[in-house]
This record gives sequence, C-alpha cells and structure tokens, in this order.
Amino acid sequence: MNFSSDNAYGAAPEILDALTRASTGAVPSYGDDPLTGALRQEMSRLFEREVALYPVVTGTAANALALATLCPQHGAIFCHADAHIATDECGAPEFYTHGAKLVTLEGRDGKLTPEGIARSLKHFLRGVVHHSQPSVISLTQASEFGTVYTRDEIAGISALAREQGLKLHMDGARFANALAHLGCTPAEATWKAGIDVLSFGATKNGAMGAEAVVVLRPDGAAALPFIRKQAMQLASKMRYVAAQFVAMLSDDLWRRNAEHANAMAARLAAGVADVPGVTLTYPVQSNAVFAGLPAEVRDALQRDYPFYVWDEATGVVRWMASFDLTADDVDGFVARLAELAAAR
Amino acid sequence: MNFSSDNAYGAAPEILDALTRASTGAVPSYGDDPLTGALRQEMSRLFEREVALYPVVTGTAANALALATLCPQHGAIFCHADAHIATDECGAPEFYTHGAKLVTLEGRDGKLTPEGIARSLKHFLRGVVHHSQPSVISLTQASEFGTVYTRDEIAGISALAREQGLKLHMDGARFANALAHLGCTPAEATWKAGIDVLSFGATKNGAMGAEAVVVLRPDGAAALPFIRKQAMQLASKMRYVAAQFVAMLSDDLWRRNAEHANAMAARLAAGVADVPGVTLTYPVQSNAVFAGLPAEVRDALQRDYPFYVWDEATGVVRWMASFDLTADDVDGFVARLAELAAAR
Amino acid sequence: MNFSSDNAYGAAPEILDALTRASTGAVPSYGDDPLTGALRQEMSRLFEREVALYPVVTGTAANALALATLCPQHGAIFCHADAHIATDECGAPEFYTHGAKLVTLEGRDGKLTPEGIARSLKHFLRGVVHHSQPSVISLTQASEFGTVYTRDEIAGISALAREQGLKLHMDGARFANALAHLGCTPAEATWKAGIDVLSFGATKNGAMGAEAVVVLRPDGAAALPFIRKQAMQLASKMRYVAAQFVAMLSDDLWRRNAEHANAMAARLAAGVADVPGVTLTYPVQSNAVFAGLPAEVRDALQRDYPFYVWDEATGVVRWMASFDLTADDVDGFVARLAELAAAR
Amino acid sequence: MNFSSDNAYGAAPEILDALTRASTGAVPSYGDDPLTGALRQEMSRLFEREVALYPVVTGTAANALALATLCPQHGAIFCHADAHIATDECGAPEFYTHGAKLVTLEGRDGKLTPEGIARSLKHFLRGVVHHSQPSVISLTQASEFGTVYTRDEIAGISALAREQGLKLHMDGARFANALAHLGCTPAEATWKAGIDVLSFGATKNGAMGAEAVVVLRPDGAAALPFIRKQAMQLASKMRYVAAQFVAMLSDDLWRRNAEHANAMAARLAAGVADVPGVTLTYPVQSNAVFAGLPAEVRDALQRDYPFYVWDEATGVVRWMASFDLTADDVDGFVARLAELAAAR
Repeated sequence: MNFSSDNAYGAAPEILDALTRASTGAVPSYGDDPLTGALRQEMSRLFEREVALYPVVTGTAANALALATLCPQHGAIFCHADAHIATDECGAPEFYTHGAKLVTLEGRDGKLTPEGIARSLKHFLRGVVHHSQPSVISLTQASEFGTVYTRDEIAGISALAREQGLKLHMDGARFANALAHLGCTPAEATWKAGIDVLSFGATKNGAMGAEAVVVLRPDGAAALPFIRKQAMQLASKMRYVAAQFVAMLSDDLWRRNAEHANAMAARLAAGVADVPGVTLTYPVQSNAVFAGLPAEVRDALQRDYPFYVWDEATGVVRWMASFDLTADDVDGFVARLAELAAAR
Repeated sequence: MNFSSDNAYGAAPEILDALTRASTGAVPSYGDDPLTGALRQEMSRLFEREVALYPVVTGTAANALALATLCPQHGAIFCHADAHIATDECGAPEFYTHGAKLVTLEGRDGKLTPEGIARSLKHFLRGVVHHSQPSVISLTQASEFGTVYTRDEIAGISALAREQGLKLHMDGARFANALAHLGCTPAEATWKAGIDVLSFGATKNGAMGAEAVVVLRPDGAAALPFIRKQAMQLASKMRYVAAQFVAMLSDDLWRRNAEHANAMAARLAAGVADVPGVTLTYPVQSNAVFAGLPAEVRDALQRDYPFYVWDEATGVVRWMASFDLTADDVDGFVARLAELAAAR
Repeated sequence: MNFSSDNAYGAAPEILDALTRASTGAVPSYGDDPLTGALRQEMSRLFEREVALYPVVTGTAANALALATLCPQHGAIFCHADAHIATDECGAPEFYTHGAKLVTLEGRDGKLTPEGIARSLKHFLRGVVHHSQPSVISLTQASEFGTVYTRDEIAGISALAREQGLKLHMDGARFANALAHLGCTPAEATWKAGIDVLSFGATKNGAMGAEAVVVLRPDGAAALPFIRKQAMQLASKMRYVAAQFVAMLSDDLWRRNAEHANAMAARLAAGVADVPGVTLTYPVQSNAVFAGLPAEVRDALQRDYPFYVWDEATGVVRWMASFDLTADDVDGFVARLAELAAAR
Repeated sequence: MNFSSDNAYGAAPEILDALTRASTGAVPSYGDDPLTGALRQEMSRLFEREVALYPVVTGTAANALALATLCPQHGAIFCHADAHIATDECGAPEFYTHGAKLVTLEGRDGKLTPEGIARSLKHFLRGVVHHSQPSVISLTQASEFGTVYTRDEIAGISALAREQGLKLHMDGARFANALAHLGCTPAEATWKAGIDVLSFGATKNGAMGAEAVVVLRPDGAAALPFIRKQAMQLASKMRYVAAQFVAMLSDDLWRRNAEHANAMAARLAAGVADVPGVTLTYPVQSNAVFAGLPAEVRDALQRDYPFYVWDEATGVVRWMASFDLTADDVDGFVARLAELAAAR
C-alpha cells in the first residue's frame, strides 16, 4: 500500500493490453500512424468540437507547452501560490515561455478567485513595457489540495478573463478526478466554461506515461507542432502514447478509474474523520485527503504506509488514493491510524 | 521642474565634458581602449580589491547579467515584492537566467529580512529536482522606496546567505545615494558585507547612460564577457561608457551628486511634513520621498509638477530628487503644495 | 513490410513482457524506484566504470540535454552537415544550449575528420568574445548514412579534441548497431576512446520509447538532474523507462536485435548490388542501405514498400532494416526490386 | 591613424554638440521625450512611409531584435557564411530567437544569390516538424567585404522571398555607406525592394552609440516594444540615443560622412592598386578595402598602422576607412606601403 502519490502505482491492465495490441505491424512514426489519427477524432468527439491534440510524455510538458502557446515571453501568468506549475516544475514554465512571470496568488482551498486575480491585475499596467503583460490565468482542476472548482467558480474567473483579455489554461493532471466529482461533460468543464487550452493527464489515472495538450480553440496554436518537436516531446513511436489514451477513453476507463480513486479518498476521509486528533484540512472532492494529526501518530503510521508530510511547518500530511487501491486497503489504513491514535 | 524620476534629468556637465574629451583619436573598440583599461584599475582601487568590471548600457542589463552570472536556470532568486527586478524589468531576469524563479517576499519599508527569507526557504527543498533551487538573494540598495539597508541589516542577510549557500546580489541603481546615506566605503557596503556582485548605476546619478556589473569575487564569472556580448551589451565604442564612469569617480562627482540629491529629498520631506493632510510613507534616506496626500491636492499639484502616483489603490505618490534640482526648486514645490493644501 | 524507418516497427516482445512485469505494486516515482536503481548499477557495469545515467523519453531529448551539459550558451558545436542534431531536431540543440552555434562540416560517408574540424576551428578565435567558443564535437555513431566510425577514426578526432580542449559527444541513437559492427565493448567504443557523454538509444532497436543520457565522466554534470526536470523529461512513472533498458541489457537483447538488423541490411545490400541500375551509395555497416536507382523503378517499388527518398536532388533512397524484419521480408523486397528493374 | 575598424574612431563633432543641446531640462524617460518623438516622425519622412522605430544601443541588438521579430523559434534564417550575424555575434541571433537556425551560404563577394538560397531551401521541408522552417533571409548591406548589393540583386532575392513566403532582413550597420554607393533613396533601398526590417546603424558612421530597428511593415511587430525592454535595450535617457540619430539626419550628416568614408576607401584602393605584390580582393564599393600583400610588408606596415589580418589562412587584410580619415592620412598610408613593398 502506498498513499504517497497517484504516480506510485503502475499502469492499469487495460493499458498494458492496449500497448501489446498496438505493437503489431509497421506504421508511420512521429504521430502519422492510424492510432494517433483515431485518437484525434476521438478527442474531438469527446469534447464535442474540433480540438487540436498534442500527446506528450510528461505532465510538466503538457503544462509548459500549453503555457508557451498562450503566453508571450513578456507575459504574466496568474496562478495559485500552491499550483504545480509554480511549485513543482523547477521553472519549466518560465523557461518555455522564455521569461514569462508566474504571479502566485493566495486563495482558499487552493483555488483562485476573480477578486484575488483582479486585485493583482492592478499592479500590471497594460501597454507599459516595464511590466510583464497579463496574459494567462492557469487553474488547476482538481487543485493541488484535491479540491475542485465548481462550474460557477470557473464561470466567474472566465468572465474576468474575457473582460481583461486573458487566456485560460486548465492544468488537468487530475482532470478525470475533477470531472468525476462535477458530474458534467468534458465540454462543460472546459471550453463551454471558457478554457482555451487543457493539460489532459492520464498518467496519474492509471496510464503508463501519457499526457496531452488539448487546444480547445485551435486558432492560435499553429506553432505548437514545431515547438513540441523542438521541446523534445514528439515521441517517435507515438502509437504507444496514443494507445494509452485510446484505452482510457474506451469503455469510460478514465472515468471509472477516477470515480474509484475518488471513492477511496472519500472512504478514507470518512474513516479518519472521527479518529481523535485527526482533522481534515480541505474538503475532499477528488482523490486527495489532507489532514493534520499528532506528530507521533504520523511518524508511526509512516513506518507502515508511505505518504508525504506536505507542509513541514504545520505538519499537515497528504494521503493520495489511486485507481488501484482497494476498500480493504483503505480500511486497513484507517484501522491502523485509529489504533495508533488510541494508543497515545 | 520634474519630480517623476531621476532619469528625467539629463547628463551632468562634467559627463558631457568627459565625452568630448574622450572623442580624440582612434582607439581599439569593444573595451580594449585605454580609458576602459584605466576604469578597470580605478574600480579595483575604489573597491579596495581586484574586481571584474563589465560596463553595460542599461540598468536592466546590469541586473539581468549579474543574476545570470549568479543563478543557474533551475535556481530561485529571493527578492522583495517591490524590487525593480520583480516589477519593472518585464521578465528580463527570468529570460536571461533561462527560467530561474523570482521569489517575491514582503518586508517593511521595501527591505528583506533574514527571517522572511528563511521562512520562504523552507518551501524549496534542496536536491529535490521538482523545486527551483535557492541560489541568490537580491537586495536593492537604496530600495524602491528610497530606504537604505543598514550595514547590520545586510550583515544579517549575509549570514543567512552564507549559512544557506546562497549568493548575494546588490541592485545598486542608486548605490551612490545609499552610500551617501550610510557614510561608509564602497568596500564596506559591498564585499566586506558579503555582496558577490553589484549592479552599479551611474545613469540616475547624472550620467548619460552608464551602468556596470561589478563582480566582487571574480572566480565564477568566466563566462560573463561572452554572455555580455551575446546579450548585446558590448558597446563598440566602449570608451564612451567608460568615460562616464571615470568622470563620475573623478573628484568624487558621484558622491557629490548623490549627496546633493539626498539633501534635496530631505529638504522636500522636511518641508512637506507639516503640511496638513500630507503624511510621509517611508523614512527618507536617499533621494526618494513617498507620501500620502488628499486626492484633489495631488491632482492640482500634478498640473504644475510631473510626478507619479505610485500606488493607485492607496494614492501614495513618489517625488524623486535629482542631482540637478536646486533648493529653490524644492522650496517652490513645497510652497505650492502648502498653498494647495490650505485652499481645500 | 516497411523500410522507411527503424521507428516504424513496434516494441519487441521482451520489452512488452518487461513492462507488464514492472507493473506490479506501488513504488516511488520520478526515478527513485528499485528498477531505475538497478539500471544505474547495470549501466556502470556495462561501461566498466561509474557513469551517471539519465533516462529520457525521446532521442532529441538525449541529444539536446547531452549538448546542454557539455556546451555553454556562447559555445560552438562541430558536427557533420548531415548529422541528426543539425537536420532533424528543429533547432532543439540551439534552444537547449540557449544559443550555441552548430557548425556543420562536410565529410565523406557522413563522417567528420580531424582535418575538417581543425580547418573550421581556425575561424573561431579563442577568447574573442565576438566568436562562439569551440566547445564540443558531436559524432553520430552509426552515422545518418549508416556508416560507422572506426576506433582509429574516433581516436584521431579525440586527440584533436583533447589538444583543443573540446568535449566529445556521441549521438548513439543507433549505438547498438555501431557496436555490433565494431565488435568491441561499450567502454572501448566510448570513454576509452575519449567520449564524454553518450546519447544511448533503445527505441530504434526495439524498445517502445527509451533513451538515455549517459555521462561517462560525471564530474561536470551536477546540474543535469535539474535541467532534465525543467526540460520536461523526468517521467513520473520512471520504472517503465528503466524497465525497457533493463530488458534490453538482459540476455544481450540489445546486441542481438542490432546484429539482426545489421544482418538484414547486409542481406538487402548484397541482394540489390547486382540488380542492374542500382548502386549502393555508402558502405553498409549498420542497418541502413542507401542506394541510387532509376526513378520509375523507385516509384513502382514504393507502391509496395514504404521507404524514403532521402535526397530529392539526387534521387538517392534509404532502406532501413529493423530488429523485426525477417530474411524472407528482405528476399521478397529484393526479388520485387529485381523484377521491376528487369521490366524496364 | 587607424585602419582597423570604423568603430575605432570617436563621435563626430556634430554628434557631441547634439548631445550637449539635448541635455537641457527634464523630460520623460524611456523614449516618451519630445526628441524621440521627433525622430520617429523624421524616420517616417525619410523612408517615405509610416515606419516603427526602435532605437537601441548596439548593432548586435538591432540585428538580434530584428531577427527575433521576423523569425519563430523553430525557424531558419538564411545568411551569407561571412555575415556578421553568423560570425561575430557570439550566438545572439540563436539566443534571441530561442533556437532558430542560421543557415550559412557561400556566395561571391560576400553576397547571397537567389540560386544559392533556392538550392539550400530544398533541404528544409515545409510543414515537416523535424526541420527548422524557412523564415527569413538576412542581407548585409554593405556586406562584410564592403561590397554592395545592386538594386537588381536585391530584387532577385526579394522575388524568391515573396514566392517562398520568407521575410527579408537587412543588416544595415553600414547602410549609409551602401546608400552612398547606390545613389538611391532609403525607401528604394529597403521596403520598395522588399525589405521588411532594417537594422539601421549610425555608430560606425560617426555616432557615439546609436542603432535602430526600423520596422518597415509594422504590422507584425506588436511585441517588439516589450521584447526590447526585456532584452535590456530600452535606454532610460533615450533622448541621447535619439539625439544622435536626429543629428545624423540633419543636413544629411549621415550621407556626407558615408560618402567621405567611401571616397577615402576608393582613394586608398586606387593608391595601392599599382603597388607591386598588392592585389585587391573584392570590388571596393563602400568604406572597406580587402587586399592580399606579402607577409613581410604586411607585418612592417602593421607596426605603423593598426589593421586586421582578416583571414589567417590566406593572409588577406582589411583596411577600413572612416568618416574621420583625411586624404593626407590615406596618402601617407599608401606611400608607406609603397615604400615597404619597394624595399623587399
């Protein structure tokens, strides 16, 4: 058992089967193969409009290339202070945009608000060459804290973006988990809500290594195919990246995996909620559970189950649920935690 | 009269004379001329040690090249939220470092504190590749608000930097003004206090366009001559940049100009302090005066004297004094302000 | 059948098995897993010395990151005019080095010579800031034309590199094919011959998507782990990249695949050599066969077998053999070509 | 006397006067001053159309920013193998375009030909992401060898550019010298001949340090003001850069200076043409004279007059004439050369 990350689990059996099936025969390389072609059509069907699809191999790549498409080198990108692009990508967004500025904002439960963005925008004067020019708002859906923007919350940010001439990026490394919580369609969760480009993650949801830049309004992305190549993200045997996404979208595997992981997180949260000394830090809306608990209980628990202390200052921990976790796993974890808490 | 910026005034007569004198004869270009050679020696004498000197043509250049020398592309630079490198250089530091992250911190009177930096450092785990690696602390001396770090304050930050393995950059666009306030030597204000690289500005202090990267501990800067060239900052007729600095250092022109500008700011601050409705925002320690005042007084005053409203939200204004401002200019300004305030 | 590229074929069965086996259980992500750890040791064993290993996901990534490690932004990289880094990577080396210059040289059979490099070096004056500074020689082994540098040829270039203070990079996208031809050890083919960093390719040799930067003299590569992350090449489920290399090195799969592909190319070359109107363009030393043939024969043949016209001007074509091609495939191809040639 | 470079001479007296005159009073900084405004109008008048003007401080800056405006990061720039952007800017074009490829072509007398460009273009397949995409042709006018493209030659290249969808850049570090030779208007020499962006140099022609990017078809350059700032080329006291250009354009100073320098070069060429052992390497059409001469004569001559050996392999030397050279200077030089040649 491992609660450290949804990256800690391997690929789902359906993914492995798909890779094997995709291995037959010789096909054109670099994305000109039939499977990648089929995926392009499938994605447009899924999103209910013509989209431009660029499969890549890491989540950082999906985010950095999406931002490079939306933001000029003298632009500013507004994101939450705890957004993955700000804290965990070692400067990749700054590098691939050639110098854009990440403006990091606080916001409750890991989410941006129109008010917070509007307040910050006042410091960036339009047309003044000394100032990085406001260009993009980047939302993480689900957020780093496992919370999910409601459709209304996105609509509010989207209205501000439209009014201010900003583009909207969605970091959807856990897009499936957010969608499972929202219960709406991919189209409703993205372009119908004003999102321009989506980083669509499959790896954390049971794939082996498959992410995609989905350009929902393809007009401005003419350079992206070249930049993806120059940025070293054009897989030669692209069929294998495509095969993972095709498998994910078949029989709703992506939704089933996400729903399961969310359910396991909810089960875990429900189980620990009544354990004395344990407090849940954020609403549990996807597959992450953040909690505070006594240090000695935490340390003892970590000897049995790997997980991260998220914030050394507060001692808050993160428990991630994955597609491959069982109810028994969760119950065993909760029981052990309760036992340790009782023994204090 | 103009209180908007110390860039609004032209070059001092001594500078113009120096440029004319420097025009005689043919000399090697790109910095191999005798005047640039003499300046190199003069700078080492001024700083009481062997320094490496790279004259450049803009203040942004001095800062961005200094930071590029100190910070790897996966590094983090800690600076005040109101530092010029964070707010007024359109992403140049991010661009020239190829993706380093500017971590912007709050701090009273526009100054960083060791405590504030230490708190932020906790979020950047060493050796963890997902995190930009802490590399540089950048101090603005004098700060954007005209305040000056005391030698003790720098010593405190320097101790933290040493302990944490960080380099120290000083943005000295107004270094002369700070020095005039501190009353210490350039060596004491910089490398003796732990500063590794200084952006040494002359333009705001009465030059025409002359800035320099002064590498105080020259070991690690072997690439800088090439990077300066590639970064388009190697002036072909370098003698003219050197001539300005030579003139500045002759007869202590740089110190006299700075002392005068500081005195004019102090006179202005003293004059307005008792005007009803006017409050000084920060201690006046160099050539900047920040103040709050009634909106209608401010608007009327701007019709006679150009100056900036620094913060639209609070209405705080900035009045900059320059080397070329006279006591009569200041007194006239104060009188007009008093008159407008009385007429409310 | 497909002779267009060794990327056109899928993954070998042993690779698919390895991916399935690697899927069991939860392990640390981002390369801290046991399999990646084992691969590190295995690579050091294979190369008979401590090496630093950085698995990545595309061949362009291995090359661009290797060059970024060896070459400063103001450096010059000497390579053959037909090298992959010069012709097929859309500027990735220039981008990741932040502006280094690729100096492209002619050379017989796609190979550089010490004389050719020495002649070009005369144009780049050391210490002159206007000139990109000579920094790296990049060899492609096997070359774009399928030829292989002899150990003596590499020794000659290596001697020049040492004398001139240049680093040596080897683009080994088809390293296994070159080694199969040379019949020497990996150590002899690389660091014992003076190579500093190797781009080690597995994808073209039957993997799904697995390349590696192998730093043979690890001293200068301290920044590479961070740069790999910032460059979006740190796979979260790294075990799957490692698993492919581990499988390749088990039971000498990599050598067997390469020997087979080479043998198929040799068989093809031998078969077509006597076909009237067909001339082999280069010595066939790995898995590529370049040939000239009548345009109408070529066009008819392309209707049955995909392959590239390599040079539109001369009409020269490329036939690539892969690990997955059978002797019957080759014989059928030769027979069809002979038939078309006879029918003219 | 100095024949090494037109950068070796100082600023013309008219320039020094203009700087002094420009020093009066306080004006807005960063290019919002009246003098810069006037220069903008003057430039549009000079070029007989609305142009966008961006004064910068070095010639490398004018070139690199011009190319960054015209070329995407995945683009290819076609230039002569001896172009300044290829040989003397330490990779600045590659850096500022974020990875564009400089494709260097041979061509008689330092000039590109449509045929040579067309031949090279065949290697860059449009829409193929592996290939840098043909984007810009850069002409140096006058060329590094002092030769000047005729209007017909430019028309031929321009026709190719239009047909192939390429932009045209002119490196006019010595634009005035070329114009003086051609005897046509600036408009005829540039946009009427198809040039999109001109690097307009004044420094080598008697200014102190003043260059400009002149965007002749301003539609696509919306980002340039921001990029100029981010690229550290926005002078705070911009009036001083503008003043130099204004002085240059007043009373045709720029044309008079260039005509004089050209005349001095012609005089020198005529003088040395009959000296035994001296051969002129290129037609003398601007202010540069290239020649071959016996090594011992050259070495002796260099003891009296600084000049460069341009090519160590052939021994060819360069003698540059400047605005500040007199007929007596030239005659003295020729006499000394003749004396040394006679003494062999």
